Amino acid sequence: MPDILHRVGIKIPADKVFQALTTLEGLSRWWISGATGDPEQGGLLLFGFVDMRVVELKPGRLVRWECTRGPEEWLGTQITFNLKSTQEQTFVLFTHANWREPVEFMHHCSTKWATFLLSLKDWLERDEGRPVPYDVKIHVGD
Amino acid sequence: MPDILHRVGIKIPADKVFQALTTLEGLSRWWISGATGDPEQGGLLLFGFVDMRVVELKPGRLVRWECTRGPEEWLGTQITFNLKSTQEQTFVLFTHANWREPVEFMHHCSTKWATFLLSLKDWLERDEGRPVPYDVKIHVGD
Repeated sequence: MPDILHRVGIKIPADKVFQALTTLEGLSRWWISGATGDPEQGGLLLFGFVDMRVVELKPGRLVRWECTRGPEEWLGTQITFNLKSTQEQTFVLFTHANWREPVEFMHHCSTKWATFLLSLKDWLERDEGRPVPYDVKIHVGD
Repeated sequence: MPDILHRVGIKIPADKVFQALTTLEGLSRWWISGATGDPEQGGLLLFGFVDMRVVELKPGRLVRWECTRGPEEWLGTQITFNLKSTQEQTFVLFTHANWREPVEFMHHCSTKWATFLLSLKDWLERDEGRPVPYDVKIHVGD
């Protein structure tokens, strides 16, 4: 099954990147403004157009969500943020896995995820996140 | 085999987008400054770190390259730009296919391709391309 893959390197320690992925404040600053819900393991995160179950957390190392409500193509898909520290930066290895088919919407979501991961980087490095509704528009009507 | 997928919509007619993908001037403005070689069907495009054979051209509709020299992971991979016109915009459906494994470099390349496709969009819509070496940096040392 096809996956969406991405990687960015962020000049911030892994524990701060982990916080950005596991707090409502953080998630609201780089992905979706006004995220609500419970960011603890087993909790449900509510992002408006989609709900995500937090299925795995390893502090400073890994965050995994499963989509429980949202676009039909996303149901049951899993999103994983793997953090890898080096002396200079924290690499975020991102996977949005278990898509059933490489539909056109998957192409769209892949490009959008790149903009959100760069939003995560820009928020952490220089306080310039671009969460929804301030997100980078990638087509007319986006 | 895993593929890199992306999509952007550009407010420009498909024939102009096709030109940006099939002329040295165009390719130099959004992907790699100083691209050389032969952009005709069967020709070899030289991008410095990589050479691409132009394996298929359908004016206003499709461009396909095959990597003949470059990073080991790219050898034999195929890059396809599929153009779809609507009244409002030209959608570019991008695929970088035939990777052998979803290695970490593939994650990196996926995010970079997103930045280059947005560079293509920004160049065509408002003359603000970001080709190498002015490309968006996605990690320390990129």
